[in-house]
Amino acid sequence: MLDDLLYGVAYYPEYIPYERMDEDMSLMRRAGFNLIRVAESTWSTWEPRDGEFDLSLLRRTLDAADSHGLKVIVGTPTYAIPAWLYKKYPDILTETHSGVARYGGRQNFDITHPGYRFHAERIMRRVLELARQYECVIGYQIDNETKHYDTCSPRAQAMFREYLERKFGTVEELNRRMGLAYWSNSIADWSDLPDVRGTINGSLGAEYSAFQRGLVTDFLLWQRSIIDEYRFYDQFITHNFDYEWRGWSFGLQPDVDQFEAARAVTIAGCDIYHKGAGELTGAEISFGGAVARGLKNDNYLVLETQAQGNFGYLPYPGQLFLQAMAHYSYGAECVEYWHWHSIHNAVESYWKGVLSHDLTPGETYRECSEIGGTLARISDHLAGLKKNNSVAVMVSRRAQCGERWFPAAMMGETPPRNYSDYLRWVTDSLYRLNVEYDIVPDTLRDFSKYKLLVLPCLYSATEELTAALRDHVANGGHIVATFRTAFADEYLKIYHDAAPHGLTDVFGVTYDRFTKPQGVSLRSESIPLPEGSAAQDWMELLRPAGARTLIEYDHPVWGGIPAVTVNDFERGSAMYIASYIGDGALDALFESALPGFGIPLPDQRWPIVLSRAVNFYGRAVTFIFNYQNSPASLPSPESGLSLLEDANVRAGDELTLPPWGVAIIEGQ
Amino acid sequence: MLDDLLYGVAYYPEYIPYERMDEDMSLMRRAGFNLIRVAESTWSTWEPRDGEFDLSLLRRTLDAADSHGLKVIVGTPTYAIPAWLYKKYPDILTETHSGVARYGGRQNFDITHPGYRFHAERIMRRVLELARQYECVIGYQIDNETKHYDTCSPRAQAMFREYLERKFGTVEELNRRMGLAYWSNSIADWSDLPDVRGTINGSLGAEYSAFQRGLVTDFLLWQRSIIDEYRFYDQFITHNFDYEWRGWSFGLQPDVDQFEAARAVTIAGCDIYHKGAGELTGAEISFGGAVARGLKNDNYLVLETQAQGNFGYLPYPGQLFLQAMAHYSYGAECVEYWHWHSIHNAVESYWKGVLSHDLTPGETYRECSEIGGTLARISDHLAGLKKNNSVAVMVSRRAQCGERWFPAAMMGETPPRNYSDYLRWVTDSLYRLNVEYDIVPDTLRDFSKYKLLVLPCLYSATEELTAALRDHVANGGHIVATFRTAFADEYLKIYHDAAPHGLTDVFGVTYDRFTKPQGVSLRSESIPLPEGSAAQDWMELLRPAGARTLIEYDHPVWGGIPAVTVNDFERGSAMYIASYIGDGALDALFESALPGFGIPLPDQRWPIVLSRAVNFYGRAVTFIFNYQNSPASLPSPESGLSLLEDANVRAGDELTLPPWGVAIIEGQ
Amino acid sequence: MLDDLLYGVAYYPEYIPYERMDEDMSLMRRAGFNLIRVAESTWSTWEPRDGEFDLSLLRRTLDAADSHGLKVIVGTPTYAIPAWLYKKYPDILTETHSGVARYGGRQNFDITHPGYRFHAERIMRRVLELARQYECVIGYQIDNETKHYDTCSPRAQAMFREYLERKFGTVEELNRRMGLAYWSNSIADWSDLPDVRGTINGSLGAEYSAFQRGLVTDFLLWQRSIIDEYRFYDQFITHNFDYEWRGWSFGLQPDVDQFEAARAVTIAGCDIYHKGAGELTGAEISFGGAVARGLKNDNYLVLETQAQGNFGYLPYPGQLFLQAMAHYSYGAECVEYWHWHSIHNAVESYWKGVLSHDLTPGETYRECSEIGGTLARISDHLAGLKKNNSVAVMVSRRAQCGERWFPAAMMGETPPRNYSDYLRWVTDSLYRLNVEYDIVPDTLRDFSKYKLLVLPCLYSATEELTAALRDHVANGGHIVATFRTAFADEYLKIYHDAAPHGLTDVFGVTYDRFTKPQGVSLRSESIPLPEGSAAQDWMELLRPAGARTLIEYDHPVWGGIPAVTVNDFERGSAMYIASYIGDGALDALFESALPGFGIPLPDQRWPIVLSRAVNFYGRAVTFIFNYQNSPASLPSPESGLSLLEDANVRAGDELTLPPWGVAIIEGQ
Repeated sequence: MLDDLLYGVAYYPEYIPYERMDEDMSLMRRAGFNLIRVAESTWSTWEPRDGEFDLSLLRRTLDAADSHGLKVIVGTPTYAIPAWLYKKYPDILTETHSGVARYGGRQNFDITHPGYRFHAERIMRRVLELARQYECVIGYQIDNETKHYDTCSPRAQAMFREYLERKFGTVEELNRRMGLAYWSNSIADWSDLPDVRGTINGSLGAEYSAFQRGLVTDFLLWQRSIIDEYRFYDQFITHNFDYEWRGWSFGLQPDVDQFEAARAVTIAGCDIYHKGAGELTGAEISFGGAVARGLKNDNYLVLETQAQGNFGYLPYPGQLFLQAMAHYSYGAECVEYWHWHSIHNAVESYWKGVLSHDLTPGETYRECSEIGGTLARISDHLAGLKKNNSVAVMVSRRAQCGERWFPAAMMGETPPRNYSDYLRWVTDSLYRLNVEYDIVPDTLRDFSKYKLLVLPCLYSATEELTAALRDHVANGGHIVATFRTAFADEYLKIYHDAAPHGLTDVFGVTYDRFTKPQGVSLRSESIPLPEGSAAQDWMELLRPAGARTLIEYDHPVWGGIPAVTVNDFERGSAMYIASYIGDGALDALFESALPGFGIPLPDQRWPIVLSRAVNFYGRAVTFIFNYQNSPASLPSPESGLSLLEDANVRAGDELTLPPWGVAIIEGQ
Repeated sequence: MLDDLLYGVAYYPEYIPYERMDEDMSLMRRAGFNLIRVAESTWSTWEPRDGEFDLSLLRRTLDAADSHGLKVIVGTPTYAIPAWLYKKYPDILTETHSGVARYGGRQNFDITHPGYRFHAERIMRRVLELARQYECVIGYQIDNETKHYDTCSPRAQAMFREYLERKFGTVEELNRRMGLAYWSNSIADWSDLPDVRGTINGSLGAEYSAFQRGLVTDFLLWQRSIIDEYRFYDQFITHNFDYEWRGWSFGLQPDVDQFEAARAVTIAGCDIYHKGAGELTGAEISFGGAVARGLKNDNYLVLETQAQGNFGYLPYPGQLFLQAMAHYSYGAECVEYWHWHSIHNAVESYWKGVLSHDLTPGETYRECSEIGGTLARISDHLAGLKKNNSVAVMVSRRAQCGERWFPAAMMGETPPRNYSDYLRWVTDSLYRLNVEYDIVPDTLRDFSKYKLLVLPCLYSATEELTAALRDHVANGGHIVATFRTAFADEYLKIYHDAAPHGLTDVFGVTYDRFTKPQGVSLRSESIPLPEGSAAQDWMELLRPAGARTLIEYDHPVWGGIPAVTVNDFERGSAMYIASYIGDGALDALFESALPGFGIPLPDQRWPIVLSRAVNFYGRAVTFIFNYQNSPASLPSPESGLSLLEDANVRAGDELTLPPWGVAIIEGQ
Repeated sequence: MLDDLLYGVAYYPEYIPYERMDEDMSLMRRAGFNLIRVAESTWSTWEPRDGEFDLSLLRRTLDAADSHGLKVIVGTPTYAIPAWLYKKYPDILTETHSGVARYGGRQNFDITHPGYRFHAERIMRRVLELARQYECVIGYQIDNETKHYDTCSPRAQAMFREYLERKFGTVEELNRRMGLAYWSNSIADWSDLPDVRGTINGSLGAEYSAFQRGLVTDFLLWQRSIIDEYRFYDQFITHNFDYEWRGWSFGLQPDVDQFEAARAVTIAGCDIYHKGAGELTGAEISFGGAVARGLKNDNYLVLETQAQGNFGYLPYPGQLFLQAMAHYSYGAECVEYWHWHSIHNAVESYWKGVLSHDLTPGETYRECSEIGGTLARISDHLAGLKKNNSVAVMVSRRAQCGERWFPAAMMGETPPRNYSDYLRWVTDSLYRLNVEYDIVPDTLRDFSKYKLLVLPCLYSATEELTAALRDHVANGGHIVATFRTAFADEYLKIYHDAAPHGLTDVFGVTYDRFTKPQGVSLRSESIPLPEGSAAQDWMELLRPAGARTLIEYDHPVWGGIPAVTVNDFERGSAMYIASYIGDGALDALFESALPGFGIPLPDQRWPIVLSRAVNFYGRAVTFIFNYQNSPASLPSPESGLSLLEDANVRAGDELTLPPWGVAIIEGQ
């Protein structure tokens, strides 16, 4: 836990068309901001020529922050390389599945390139030497949303071959585990391993992706080791982990093993962008927060989120306030806008900051000031919030990769749903029902903290994991699994026994046939399904062996076959969802079934969202958000002090929230 | 004619995760399978290192087949090259219009590469030396669905230049026939011929495609010459010719001159995949069979067809049985499933075999056993079936290529219809009307066997062909031609006289204008067109000169101009369809007009499908298929022995067929 | 002004399959054609080998034209290079953002290549030496629709670096004006400037586009300087400028600074292709004519337009006549069809000429003869027509480029609207209202000739331009501007003060927020908007400061904010349209507002189109076009001589026009 709640902006004086640093910082302070993030974007400014350093602007910025009383996060300026570095090493640009990158963009270099490493370390040390002299510097950010940029350089591929040798020992074992014989791809010598970019073998392709994700972890650990030489004990190290991107932060970032990579930081950070205006739902704030909170099983920093946002998401009045409170409610100890001012040239010029291009305080600045004022009043009540969720959703990058190579929606809609769609399908249903959840990795083995474990599309699962799941249920836990669970092992080799592998008795079902549903409706005697509920993308033809059917298919040929079952196994129970049944049916299913798993449902449903935590004073804090463009009225779910109004309320009292309004009740 | 009807599976012990060969073969025999195909996919297994051979698994498989009484087709393992061969010859991968292939996939090499040829021959000889020692080996399959893989290597292009020199003699003649002057592309020296990949000249581009198709023929003849050194007189040579692919076997394979290439085999083979489940129509079984039967004007082998099929086409109960009987009814002497087991790694893992991934007999295996049991009982009645069709549909790869360069639907729908769409438009209409047809090449000159010749989109036609068509009609034959018939010569040079070239008097029409129909309906006094019938894609503005109008356009400007005409010419008649009029209007047109061409129509229409042949005993065999998910009842079209029920029926007796049911009546 | 109205065809004897030059020219003359254009397409015919010339066909063509009394435009044959030239200089093909071009197409070479320049000059001189000997040659066409073909060769990029050095002097200035610091792109040495193709910097990218456009101007001036050595004083030099292409001539050609480049010609030329048949509106004839007329502020030549047109646009009866008269009415002194005959091989084979492939006079030839006959009768009344429009629409390639890098529709429809869509949005509204307009460049500073200046999406505007606009209004002029006006400077740097930059008092509005409208309707008290009028693509949230609101947003959050305002400023007024409001609302707005700007509206609306000019005799000529497939009846807008009927009419007399009919009234 940090000493204070942080509220800040990314600040780029290097992009501002004229000198106004004092004015900027005065405006920040007046709005209640207490933090800036600097330095991570402009290596070419700090080192305009090879070996010629000019940190004067950074020094001036830190001096000014110091004198204005702003805290500072200093980023390492390594995600965008200067032109001279590219000229020096023409092979520094990443060579990917689709060719060699061109100079100009960011994050376009080979993170394994020794020349890159040498120069990145040198500029880092210069920046760190300067930054360590400032008390205002409270922490460091490693790089920026680091990924492997699909490096497929000869160097990276040679490293991959060594990785395979270490992992599999012999080519025979490699051939066997990957099934390389298919279409004559097996090899008899390690030196025969061809350029992996052409492979049609999903197992080998997925292994290369795993190797690439490992490069990211190595990279972040390397930067941390350098920062550690400079930082003081009370300075944190963080990194802005991100998400599968769809124009906003949608799903699980496939290119980083974030739970592994989080070893490189002392506190997790993340960048959460989302749709706004009439499309704001809050689902990404909750989901993104759960991912970030899970990385170190602790609170986190929102290192970037939108001010005016990308074009089209200009916030409605009240939304910025709501968004900030929502982040804090999920365990964020920092909300930092990207960015202070709007860019005048280049790219991202329409992803606007707190200030518009006219650099004058406007409506967005005004609402930021309102947040800042509120925090000044109540931030001690929001500090050190702890969540205690009894539901966990398991994510797996192996499974995600499996879904990419062998998608469930392989004959489906355009664009086809992928792993993140199925993940968000379950998390968003929980969100709508106000069931708060954690996100846990597939490497977790002890689930005792959770009553319910949800496994969306756990296509790939090791023997150890299936055994742990079995134990969880046997010991009284509950699981909800979807189609394709434990269909393949960690190398995406499909198990050659009854599916779901190792869990047929736990679920009380098996199957050996599946197909794409066409005109397959759903029916249920026990669950009130919405009109038009249908199986989509994928359907397994379950053969129950003990399980009770909750929902079944309705179809001339496949009618009567179960679509959703539940099974009592030893002291727990296990639900199996054999098809993608859509949002409405899943909501109805969860609403009906979750109480039976010991998960009580509050009365409110989205667009009223509840977020609960315990604060530093040990008091329960309940946030109530109104995610709609009209006012809402509801009985207060708790008794206590309404922090925003500084007034007492009692459970059941009528609470009235304006459009996009917030209430925060601190229990006694 | 083969001795027995064949019923088999492609068998890949090299992909199976554990040893179970005896169990597999016992299961096959118990289901009634009498055939496996082996060896064609895994060169890297047979030759793991350059010159190091290991045929032990193949030997063991042949030994086991021998002892289990299974016949074997041995394939040459040349369609997927080992990694070591690629390492040895980095230029072995095919260089195409879109760049150089990457190692990993199959069918990605340059079929003209001398290194490829050397090593392919060497491994072939090893496999053949072994295979010839086994009596169970009844035949050989050359390679697998061979194409030219768009080879555009410098070697291939040098061969093309020589081909042009041989064919045209002088550059002046080349310039003239191709019209190379356009946009300064004419050449004065053979050495000026540039990389053909950039050409915008449809004639030159089409000639390169023709050259590439010739490479396939050469390749297959080369493999045959090697196999001939090893095979015994009673062993056949075949090849699995395929179709234009749209996720299933849809149209005419554009990349192989199959009628030419069939010289390389002693019996034609084919791979037929089709939509299944609720989308099964049988049209591909009929169409694909007609193409294969035409290749050598004889019966053929279905070397691959689907068991559980690609994801989404899991068969409904009864469909596998119906499909097998349909294949046999069109002259197939073999139905072989791809494949026995389902793949656990790599690619094609969801294109499932007779066994699912659990390798346990399931529902699909059960239905295969039913087919096997039936064949054991009645296969002698289904052997040596001969079709006697009086309708032929002419196909032309020159015309197909013309349609690609100059599509009728150039301003049409997305995706635009191509040659195969127009081909299937006429064949599927005949199919729905239960008019059986042969497929004949545009090199055929004697049509006396047929009452009616249908010419879909015969865009390119030589003078010789138009003369033969004229003779056919003059001698009492009938033809139905569509828009664009004989518009261009064999080099896609548009004829510079009245269209259709050389046939204006035969059709009794001409035209010099055409356009894309927009809002052009159809009307007819004599033919009951379905509501909403409209001209699409292309419409010619015919000027009748003797022909009678059957259908005309309905449009404020073009109204009254004929869309379909028929003309009596000497002893025959010729119909001209000047626009793509859609399925319903074509059905109505054919239904109305075919009897006048001496083609009687049975009472039944699809989804009831009739297939007629004469068996080895000289008896007429009538297959009746019910392609729908509900039962059907109809008067028996024939008297005779109902083979499946072993009961006599009389013409007119009520026949009842279950959903996807089959009846087979053998006349006395 | 030329001596006679020209009416001609592009003639390519080099593509015709047999000798028929005399027949062709006799047919042309009989139809009333008086012009052919020759020679520009077939360098390989004129120079089959390096240095070996054969102009015999050109000589024969010129001889024949001479004897048939046809005028000739001779084109320089430099837009399509021979194969031998490519063989000689393999690097002659253009290297673009997307790779290196392949030989085969036209306009695929690097226009800066010295080898190209050398050989192009040599063949030009040979052609010119021949052409200058013929009196029938009335002028020369430089090349063909010249563009820069996106040359990004190392040579071109080195030239760009020199261009930047000359323009900006220091790298610091470059960094500052372009904002290169973003993502570390700033440079400290000119030699660090990387390949511009990878840039993410819109300012730098736009500057490269400007540099490329300059190459085109240089190229045309270079050819002119050569032609000038050969031509006689009475021979013109022209070039066929074209338009943004969408399958037809749609918008502003982004790749040529046409107003600059027009310095290379003595009379402007253009190629106008448009939709036809049921989709003919005439809008491209008007728009394309206005662009061409603006290039030299004088009349122009239509060097190419469609005869039978591209596939699908076969003209309805009467349309060819209407189209020709429309071209002449806008100031064209030449209407030349592309092309005489239809191509038999190669490409563009379905873009048909006056003759179809059968080379026989057909319906199109017949209608051309009707035009020719009419011209023979009345062309002196149509010669030297002068337009006197009081509305100008300003176009800007800097703004166009800005729209490409930072599109208003960045989150919009598919495909998103671009600059040309917004341009055509305003010009087509004017067209529908029969308000004739000129097109003027953003370099114009004196607008006194115009009552109203319309500025569609003038995203980029210099300080000088905004000052000139201010003066225009101050002096009693009117302007209509749209969203994003003057948002950025000439380097696409967004101005950092109040928007619209320098014009807030002129418009009486400002704004610092904008977003994508979703569900935002429009409402107005003064203007009758069509049902369903909505804001689309982009909306600014205006804060009025003196302006009156004409239309406002209707939306739960943004409702009441102005969408369209008008402001009186000194002696003039300025309208601001803050969102893309669609066609219907713009029509209603213009209909309501234009009279207030001193622009009277005629009673007729499209599909009746009026075009007015003054002829050589000083008489007002009014063209009336009926752009619909049904007859029209209207009171004559003028009194005078109806030229086509040679009869007098009086204003108010009933005029009846057939479908696609034309009337031309010459005042007394």
